[in-house]
Amino acid sequence: MTAPTALAIVGVGKIARDQHLPSIARNPAFDLVAAASRNARLDGVENFTTAAEMFEAMPGIEAVALCMPPQARHAIAADALGRGKHVLLEKPPGATLSEINHLAHLAEACGVSLFATWHSRFAPGVEPARDWLAGKSIRSVRVDWMEDVRHWHPGQDWIWEPGGLGVFDPGINALSIVTRILPEPVWLTSAELSFPENRAAPIAARLRFEGGSDLTAEAIFDWRQTGPQTWDIAVETDEGKLVLSAGGATLAIDGAVVSEAPEAEYDGIYARFAELIAKRQSDVDISPLRHVADAFMLGRRQIVEPFHDHAGDGH
Amino acid sequence: MTAPTALAIVGVGKIARDQHLPSIARNPAFDLVAAASRNARLDGVENFTTAAEMFEAMPGIEAVALCMPPQARHAIAADALGRGKHVLLEKPPGATLSEINHLAHLAEACGVSLFATWHSRFAPGVEPARDWLAGKSIRSVRVDWMEDVRHWHPGQDWIWEPGGLGVFDPGINALSIVTRILPEPVWLTSAELSFPENRAAPIAARLRFEGGSDLTAEAIFDWRQTGPQTWDIAVETDEGKLVLSAGGATLAIDGAVVSEAPEAEYDGIYARFAELIAKRQSDVDISPLRHVADAFMLGRRQIVEPFHDHAGDGH
Repeated sequence: MTAPTALAIVGVGKIARDQHLPSIARNPAFDLVAAASRNARLDGVENFTTAAEMFEAMPGIEAVALCMPPQARHAIAADALGRGKHVLLEKPPGATLSEINHLAHLAEACGVSLFATWHSRFAPGVEPARDWLAGKSIRSVRVDWMEDVRHWHPGQDWIWEPGGLGVFDPGINALSIVTRILPEPVWLTSAELSFPENRAAPIAARLRFEGGSDLTAEAIFDWRQTGPQTWDIAVETDEGKLVLSAGGATLAIDGAVVSEAPEAEYDGIYARFAELIAKRQSDVDISPLRHVADAFMLGRRQIVEPFHDHAGDGH
Repeated sequence: MTAPTALAIVGVGKIARDQHLPSIARNPAFDLVAAASRNARLDGVENFTTAAEMFEAMPGIEAVALCMPPQARHAIAADALGRGKHVLLEKPPGATLSEINHLAHLAEACGVSLFATWHSRFAPGVEPARDWLAGKSIRSVRVDWMEDVRHWHPGQDWIWEPGGLGVFDPGINALSIVTRILPEPVWLTSAELSFPENRAAPIAARLRFEGGSDLTAEAIFDWRQTGPQTWDIAVETDEGKLVLSAGGATLAIDGAVVSEAPEAEYDGIYARFAELIAKRQSDVDISPLRHVADAFMLGRRQIVEPFHDHAGDGH
């Protein structure tokens, strides 16, 4: 067995603590050696305020996981790639398509691995769903992705800023699954985006797509859902109906559950990152973010009632 | 000499009459045989109301130029490619990035040529500018693209609808030049978009970009300019300053005009289309539209005073 990869993490917020750190701790391919965060500190590793300070102080860092908001990701990713480090990007991989395009070329030029992750693609039902749909004729796709933003993003102001994507931050998870499981591409034909009058990002969206062979798809994203949360994708085919629910954890065919497993998305992500590093390959699929950019470009905007975050950090 | 390509045109509006028809008439590689338009009729060719009727009635059509608004382009382009016809797309090539991606794959699968045109790239100063900038270190780029929408787009409602792009319809011409002449890529870092309160598309935009090696770029698009019209791109390098003005017609280096020629953009487009068809190649560079999609996704929106088109067709 080769020595573990010396890994650093940048951005020690909710997603890092909830998901990245436990999965890194469970994976013997990685040795977490440092963290960079404006405010937070991690026990047991070297801590820095900025990524640049960290890279200067610890040249032995071989790979870095970027978990801060997407608006700040490109500059640090480009710096890390230029220093010959492998880079893992939380989703969405950046604030623009063009900057990700640039990072992909840079990773290739520098001979290191860039991994633009889509954690929902590692939900346990996704690969079985892809396998079942392969070769079948798809009639329609329906996505319902409805959750309570106050519960899932308490006080996260960046998500309402330009580049934060609003409801597309969870919605892109659905798009990352759809683009993985469908055997043919789809393209947006219309969209309506609902912007709270006091916010720069949408709180809800309705998207319509077409695909080859008369496939139609519709997606409803809504951040105003209290009570039960819904993360469902239903696909009608000429040989039956597939439903992925609970964000991809449960797969049912014609009403019968055929696959159900505990969530282990980030374990899958770090296993894949180790594999990419070993092979010096990159994995950068921008199609989920391309659909989001298309929705912002083609979508009709409507203004809805203001959103106030009552969760407690100043709103 | 081989026989001319039997060409049809779809969408007989202002751009078709002003630009496409004269250039087609001057190019012996093409024989215009038919037109499809909801309202207009062309003398000397077969006329149809829809492209589908035209393709059914005249299977000998070998190539088609699509000049209608971008929102309607994909369905007809996919139909034409599937029937084995070469396709030329007016700019912008479509309403979404994903649909163009689909068309590019379809053209390859069908063994025909797809040409996503950017007419400003055929302005006479563009290739000399690209040649002069090659290998130079770029410090900054400044784009000023300011025109009077009432003069250039009288009564064109589609341009204010979702997918019509508003001021990005001319602005994308500047972006098509910038992406052609710069020796390195740029990516958007911030944008402000000004939407008239009664319109679904922006009337003005301010974009900021970065590039490798500390390059910065700024673009100002504004549709409210009366009086002299401005279509200028200035590039500061470590070896002097380049200015492309009049939309790319005039090239000056350090204040001295080095290239000035009459506009012949569409002659260049049809010469290139003939070359692509002869070689069964495609030319689909989506980078200008990708920057626009990035601007819609990352841009901060502000509402400005309503826009009323006094030019006469019902507003």
